[in-house]
Amino acid sequence: MRRVIELAEKNVRDGRGGPFAALVSKDGEIVAEGTNLVTSTNDPTAHAEVVAIRRACAAISSFQLAGLELYTSCEPCPMCLGAIYWARPSAIYYGATHTDAAEAGFDDSFIYQQTKLPVAQRAIPMRQLLGDEAKAPFDVWRNTLAKILY
Amino acid sequence: MRRVIELAEKNVRDGRGGPFAALVSKDGEIVAEGTNLVTSTNDPTAHAEVVAIRRACAAISSFQLAGLELYTSCEPCPMCLGAIYWARPSAIYYGATHTDAAEAGFDDSFIYQQTKLPVAQRAIPMRQLLGDEAKAPFDVWRNTLAKILY
Repeated sequence: MRRVIELAEKNVRDGRGGPFAALVSKDGEIVAEGTNLVTSTNDPTAHAEVVAIRRACAAISSFQLAGLELYTSCEPCPMCLGAIYWARPSAIYYGATHTDAAEAGFDDSFIYQQTKLPVAQRAIPMRQLLGDEAKAPFDVWRNTLAKILY
Repeated sequence: MRRVIELAEKNVRDGRGGPFAALVSKDGEIVAEGTNLVTSTNDPTAHAEVVAIRRACAAISSFQLAGLELYTSCEPCPMCLGAIYWARPSAIYYGATHTDAAEAGFDDSFIYQQTKLPVAQRAIPMRQLLGDEAKAPFDVWRNTLAKILY
């Protein structure tokens, strides 16, 4: 945890992005590290956890992190929590809370609220189009035998 | 919407990943497209919306999609909904629902449930460590004048 706190501070000093860092480890050894690179790479998805997960998956050539652990300097935002659930590490350790992040000006709490709201009540307008036709890709998926489940 | 449905079907047939596609448009013109590339790139974050957002941001050299619209073949999972809120497009159009996705075997509904639960009740164990020390990066952030807000 001290390693990710240190990386998060350095990330701000180096002007690479927000005050966040994460790492993925296995049996106490670091597999990959990541910091927030949103502004330096023009990538709104480049949060520390996402960057660390992508690098860890590349390092072990797998889209799953079973048996590995994630350390993050701050409680994951909904995007990162979702990314973590898709990657399925064995445990998550976090430092600061999303309340701490909100106090520093980050939207995490707002996005948590939005995620919990019904579609019609969210701040960014969301509208369903062609709901029936859009089920067709799932039929193609069901009928495809040579597929990799994830 | 028909374009993303077609891309989602092609994605499965080409063996590149799950049955999902998305695109970002501005004034009716496509800025970038993306499909699910999780299994073909070993990247659990490479969902269609994330891929489309990253490509659109690269195309317009910005970490924000203000004034642009996102079309996705299926209602976004929590990770993608978070990514969309960070990218802040003006509107979201989706085809199938996350119930349709769940029926085809995708975890979206499970992750939505998990996101709403208190930390202590989630399926992947989450534990806070060094909560006080971990606030330090936010102090560095507050004290840094030459920073780009996002």
